[in-house]
Amino acid sequence: MPEATITGKADILTRFRSVRAQTEQICATLTPEDTVMQPMVDVSPPKWHLGHTTWFFETFVLVPHWPGYKAFHSQYAFLFNSYYNSMGSRVARSDRGTLSRPPLEDIYAYRRHVNEHMEKALGSPEITGNPSLAPILELGLQHEQQHQELLVCDIKYILSCNPLLPAYQAKPAPVLSTFSGKQPQNEWCQVPEGMYTIGYQGKDFCFDNEYQPHQVFIAGFSARRKLVTNQEFLEFMKAGGYLDFRFWLDEGWQLAQQQDWQAPLYWVNQDGEWWHFTLHGLEKIDLNAPVTHISFYEAHAYANWSGHRLLTEFEWEALAQCYANVPANGNFLESGQYQPVPENAENTEIIPQLLGNTWEWTYSGYFPYPGFVTAPGAIGEYNGKFMINQMVLRGGSCATPQSHIRTTYRNFFHPDKRWQFTGIRLAKK
Amino acid sequence: MPEATITGKADILTRFRSVRAQTEQICATLTPEDTVMQPMVDVSPPKWHLGHTTWFFETFVLVPHWPGYKAFHSQYAFLFNSYYNSMGSRVARSDRGTLSRPPLEDIYAYRRHVNEHMEKALGSPEITGNPSLAPILELGLQHEQQHQELLVCDIKYILSCNPLLPAYQAKPAPVLSTFSGKQPQNEWCQVPEGMYTIGYQGKDFCFDNEYQPHQVFIAGFSARRKLVTNQEFLEFMKAGGYLDFRFWLDEGWQLAQQQDWQAPLYWVNQDGEWWHFTLHGLEKIDLNAPVTHISFYEAHAYANWSGHRLLTEFEWEALAQCYANVPANGNFLESGQYQPVPENAENTEIIPQLLGNTWEWTYSGYFPYPGFVTAPGAIGEYNGKFMINQMVLRGGSCATPQSHIRTTYRNFFHPDKRWQFTGIRLAKK
Amino acid sequence: MPEATITGKADILTRFRSVRAQTEQICATLTPEDTVMQPMVDVSPPKWHLGHTTWFFETFVLVPHWPGYKAFHSQYAFLFNSYYNSMGSRVARSDRGTLSRPPLEDIYAYRRHVNEHMEKALGSPEITGNPSLAPILELGLQHEQQHQELLVCDIKYILSCNPLLPAYQAKPAPVLSTFSGKQPQNEWCQVPEGMYTIGYQGKDFCFDNEYQPHQVFIAGFSARRKLVTNQEFLEFMKAGGYLDFRFWLDEGWQLAQQQDWQAPLYWVNQDGEWWHFTLHGLEKIDLNAPVTHISFYEAHAYANWSGHRLLTEFEWEALAQCYANVPANGNFLESGQYQPVPENAENTEIIPQLLGNTWEWTYSGYFPYPGFVTAPGAIGEYNGKFMINQMVLRGGSCATPQSHIRTTYRNFFHPDKRWQFTGIRLAKK
Amino acid sequence: MPEATITGKADILTRFRSVRAQTEQICATLTPEDTVMQPMVDVSPPKWHLGHTTWFFETFVLVPHWPGYKAFHSQYAFLFNSYYNSMGSRVARSDRGTLSRPPLEDIYAYRRHVNEHMEKALGSPEITGNPSLAPILELGLQHEQQHQELLVCDIKYILSCNPLLPAYQAKPAPVLSTFSGKQPQNEWCQVPEGMYTIGYQGKDFCFDNEYQPHQVFIAGFSARRKLVTNQEFLEFMKAGGYLDFRFWLDEGWQLAQQQDWQAPLYWVNQDGEWWHFTLHGLEKIDLNAPVTHISFYEAHAYANWSGHRLLTEFEWEALAQCYANVPANGNFLESGQYQPVPENAENTEIIPQLLGNTWEWTYSGYFPYPGFVTAPGAIGEYNGKFMINQMVLRGGSCATPQSHIRTTYRNFFHPDKRWQFTGIRLAKK
Repeated sequence: MPEATITGKADILTRFRSVRAQTEQICATLTPEDTVMQPMVDVSPPKWHLGHTTWFFETFVLVPHWPGYKAFHSQYAFLFNSYYNSMGSRVARSDRGTLSRPPLEDIYAYRRHVNEHMEKALGSPEITGNPSLAPILELGLQHEQQHQELLVCDIKYILSCNPLLPAYQAKPAPVLSTFSGKQPQNEWCQVPEGMYTIGYQGKDFCFDNEYQPHQVFIAGFSARRKLVTNQEFLEFMKAGGYLDFRFWLDEGWQLAQQQDWQAPLYWVNQDGEWWHFTLHGLEKIDLNAPVTHISFYEAHAYANWSGHRLLTEFEWEALAQCYANVPANGNFLESGQYQPVPENAENTEIIPQLLGNTWEWTYSGYFPYPGFVTAPGAIGEYNGKFMINQMVLRGGSCATPQSHIRTTYRNFFHPDKRWQFTGIRLAKK
Repeated sequence: MPEATITGKADILTRFRSVRAQTEQICATLTPEDTVMQPMVDVSPPKWHLGHTTWFFETFVLVPHWPGYKAFHSQYAFLFNSYYNSMGSRVARSDRGTLSRPPLEDIYAYRRHVNEHMEKALGSPEITGNPSLAPILELGLQHEQQHQELLVCDIKYILSCNPLLPAYQAKPAPVLSTFSGKQPQNEWCQVPEGMYTIGYQGKDFCFDNEYQPHQVFIAGFSARRKLVTNQEFLEFMKAGGYLDFRFWLDEGWQLAQQQDWQAPLYWVNQDGEWWHFTLHGLEKIDLNAPVTHISFYEAHAYANWSGHRLLTEFEWEALAQCYANVPANGNFLESGQYQPVPENAENTEIIPQLLGNTWEWTYSGYFPYPGFVTAPGAIGEYNGKFMINQMVLRGGSCATPQSHIRTTYRNFFHPDKRWQFTGIRLAKK
Repeated sequence: MPEATITGKADILTRFRSVRAQTEQICATLTPEDTVMQPMVDVSPPKWHLGHTTWFFETFVLVPHWPGYKAFHSQYAFLFNSYYNSMGSRVARSDRGTLSRPPLEDIYAYRRHVNEHMEKALGSPEITGNPSLAPILELGLQHEQQHQELLVCDIKYILSCNPLLPAYQAKPAPVLSTFSGKQPQNEWCQVPEGMYTIGYQGKDFCFDNEYQPHQVFIAGFSARRKLVTNQEFLEFMKAGGYLDFRFWLDEGWQLAQQQDWQAPLYWVNQDGEWWHFTLHGLEKIDLNAPVTHISFYEAHAYANWSGHRLLTEFEWEALAQCYANVPANGNFLESGQYQPVPENAENTEIIPQLLGNTWEWTYSGYFPYPGFVTAPGAIGEYNGKFMINQMVLRGGSCATPQSHIRTTYRNFFHPDKRWQFTGIRLAKK
Repeated sequence: MPEATITGKADILTRFRSVRAQTEQICATLTPEDTVMQPMVDVSPPKWHLGHTTWFFETFVLVPHWPGYKAFHSQYAFLFNSYYNSMGSRVARSDRGTLSRPPLEDIYAYRRHVNEHMEKALGSPEITGNPSLAPILELGLQHEQQHQELLVCDIKYILSCNPLLPAYQAKPAPVLSTFSGKQPQNEWCQVPEGMYTIGYQGKDFCFDNEYQPHQVFIAGFSARRKLVTNQEFLEFMKAGGYLDFRFWLDEGWQLAQQQDWQAPLYWVNQDGEWWHFTLHGLEKIDLNAPVTHISFYEAHAYANWSGHRLLTEFEWEALAQCYANVPANGNFLESGQYQPVPENAENTEIIPQLLGNTWEWTYSGYFPYPGFVTAPGAIGEYNGKFMINQMVLRGGSCATPQSHIRTTYRNFFHPDKRWQFTGIRLAKK
């Protein structure tokens, strides 16, 4: 994997401060009680996210590399290790919701403690001048950004379980997505047959799972310019899509029956109209916005029903390469919308909305690229060991920090998961 | 059931204030996060206890009987109903731990709101002069006292799940139990054969399950004066009591194997010595204190191993009748010990320690007394519908309010439960 | 417990032959595949019953007491031990359905082998003249009779799971129950207040759980002469009895909701009419026959709904004592009906139908009588270790061998069980 | 998908007879009780396999296409439908083990009935001359061959659950695998970089999942000529491979811990030596035979530990293309070995043992090839709906009929499955 480019002390320090502050800003409106909830095993309590992202810097930077640093608390390594077997025993994932202590204020003290030491360290040439540390510093920031997206999704799930349906924050002024210009000539973007180089080829940071770049032959195909909208998905629902096994993968069908799926997660029907729970409380469905909070199974069933199909992750990356002017100014975490938004009606360019709004399920399993190697030690547990039973998603969402995403980025979830901002892009031929 | 004796406005109002304040005092040292924990389904979050006991007065007194009273919040009836089918739908018991909202401060505002209205009502002849209301007011107080005991046990369980093993409060000055005098002549108390009247015969409050008084013929037997101590229970453990099926009921044996029971709940062995988690943190076992946090299965196995047996609930009540001077000044909630304590070494009377310290498992199922009838309406759901699959316990514990207990009081739990302060008294022939 | 009276070689040998043959007769119409089914954990495969009852004689009589006897197969002790921890490890109860081998013919060879040796032994004074063996021989016969009843119930459950709903045997000629005479003057039988001796006082065999006889004071009450009929139970169903929580114990109500109980086990509604699966295939409900295949919860709910109650086991036994001429010629296993049958319409005596047709749920937990002691060794595991969480049933059923039942007999099942022939008798005051 | 080539009446009829007889031959040594066992949900009772394969011909050939044909039994369609939602309701997969009836002899009568009609039909030009029927006839045969392999694996699992460890049949004379010649120059087979056509391109039968052929670019790599042997796998075990998380995928590691995996399925350690249950009873491990009965997780962990990796399914097919003279005369079902066998020691050719012995786990998810379409109707449920959460296996095994396998054949199982004959081939660079 390429080494991260950290061009100077000012840069990494500025980014460190910015990322750390962003995490706390996301948690600003939560009550202490909100921060300990774990209503399902996939969700981690916000307090745990706050501690775990701090533990990462303490464990991989300060303790081994900053002379004289003393761990904030002897048991936090046990409390806030996520899944690194290399780093010793830890609280079972399903028990994170039992951690009423340390109280929230202690976690913020922990953050301040680690931040102060990190800021000193990031001002020291011993740290910033150490080339072997650059990747770990960068990884710490990227890691915290990943947890920012998880925080948004977990908070949404936590609040949705509460019968009071509390709003996380007031609804912000609406924004429209970013494309503009004349009417697009058609809704499908062509990608020609050919050999494509897949994987990260730049010089900045990427995760090990984007590496190494390799040749993939791709037959020509077309991809829908836009994500599938709520209106389109409602047509699937009205046509009985949730009731017709023919469109479904068998395991998806069984799950949908067991759990009585009739609509995306968070949707409720009140007197014949569809509403959904959002971070701004219960709202009417916006028909023009992209559909989200659907599993791979629902994405696949929709694609089948519509007579099209999902893209593979390689096709998705080729699509991005073919439309090289893909703008990155979509609807990300920074917009404060916390919801996919409709496309600007005036957008007429034939450019796919690739980044932001919702992650796009691909029909590709999450497996290693040729030549993939895991790093030695705990960092090697970052990605490789999860390469089974999960599907790749591409493109980032309205909960992804803008500086975190790129077109080679591979996200991954099990095909039944619905609590992330996940959506559908269609392909044909 | 006899009607409660409420002798005047001052009395019920004073008691109302005292009971309500006691509940909040129990919760005073908790963090907001502590108050939402539900680490197992038997445990309710302290916040829920605080709300539910308030809901009881709002629902059964203020709403139906106090003109102009407006419910504090339209959804609290849904949030804080426990199990009254008559009172409509409610949060599933297993989901009480998802209630991060309303925040703790709202619950205290709810308590203040209901307290203010209740205090006005308890100053009004319309309420205190209404004979049909007296039982419900009394029941509200008794009900809240029951939840005080549950709160202590639930808080202990919640804190015990935390890897930091936090203390609920600092250890208070030790108290000794209350008996004194010359050396007892023997350790067994005789109860002669005869017909005994079982059940409550007084004129004050009792629960419907203590009613109606009836004749039971009891063969002569002896009961141990003292509860089984930790030292005695350790002898059972050292003798392999947890490993020998012959002493166990079959379902208890299977459970003990599955859950790998090797000692009472909360006990941990560190370097060959036994410690236990208490509300004052981890402490060494006090060998002279009564053993507690054991299931009926363990109590029964211990009794078998020792060559004795448990009492029936009728024998227990006969024992209390035979030693009519049973003092009620044992180790109760008010002592602030939150732990069973050793008997005063100078106690030499032949009087059984019947009340306080630990509940005593009896080998009697929790079934209705002859002539038992349930009240009409929601109050009728209080006791009768639980009369299956549970065993009766007698005598109160160190978490029971002193004014709440009496010798006819019937507590009941499933035989596998261990998180209450439960212990053992032995009988023989 | 009293020693069994075995008056001579002929008697025990004749009975041995008769009991052993009865078991095989019950299994005569089964296919080999039927004999290995275990569709729920409570059911044991018929092949296992055939082997286990044989293992009992081999293990407790032949191996220890018959010189030169060689076990039929070295592993059968592992395969056919039921729950005797004293007798070593065994196939887990839930895995009995995996025993396709030994094939059925081997089990019959095993039976023949043990029978031959037992017949020789029962012809030998060493065996029949050994007073310590008499109880174990008697226990072996009684034990096999218990398994005969289980076999009938298990076979019914096994066949009921098959979509083909196969009949176990053709419907026999109907029999009417056995009472006759003039019209009864009333439907309730009085039992006067008084002290009753409960437990077995005879000189023949009884189980250890019927021992020892002891005094119980019983207040006066009345019991219904007849069991509750299907017609009566249908009235409860039509009145919404399964839908109204007020009549139910809470755990029963929750179970009934989870499992969607709407009628007794084996009942199906076809085009508005109730049918039930019987050992003769699917049949219309006989309105005059006693209702059966109901749990304790349903019995209790019915009693509540009807304004009456269930008897305690002590009341039941007092009832039997008051009507000392209780005939034992009810509808038992030997009738070949395998179904409760209506009472003879001409019966007019005020005598309760106490024995046969259906077991009667009592509102008494299955606990030891005063002075109960378990025998040393494996036989001591027979009854005592099950004395928790079960309710006592009295009176025997249409699947009970006639020579096996008596009025002091205590049967016991968990309150949710429905696959036995269980029914309802009502009491009042 | 290409239409099957059925060149004449004799051919299809001969093959029909042969395939149908083969299935019965596999079941010849089973007791009736063996044929109803379902000790885990993945296993189907042999009787069910016998019925289901027959139902396939009845349902898809005789009922719709053979005039005057009358279904053998009106309920068999319900009993023997596997997973075809298009064909109506059916016995739940997990309940197949409850089917004691119809008895085994009825199933054989069912087979004879369908065989007789099919033989007539296969002699009729209306059937054999109908081009639309050819694929379905061929599919029926291929389908039954698939169930032959499942039968062997299911029977092995069924017998392995029995404490008697019965042998399915006596051990046959050993055979050696089929290669011979001079000593191979090296153990790795080179595959050059290039574009390969993946998928079936022939004119005979293939499954829809092998279709359509498409171009895949593959970087150069090497594959081990031989499968990993028991000796090699034992080295992994001895080196602590089952105890070191670093080699494992995370979900595999968790499963291995939960289920305490320490060796392949069926292995048992007796006094320090490894044995395994085979269809010939318990045997010592043959160190030179290929390891089998391992999950994908174990295959992947072994590959990691050895410093190599698994092939993708595309690499596997390219390997087969590069060694075009791959012989198909490996160790298949017809050998009667029912176990992988060691390679002929004299084999010295550089030819990979691709077919037979064990299926080879690939690190490729089971997903559709480009242009994959499902057939309309029930046949469309054959493969496509299972294309999630499963891994592709290649090459056939000792339980695969020889005429059933080819190098484009894609088998698929969840990565945790171990009861099939699954093994490991390694790749590098």
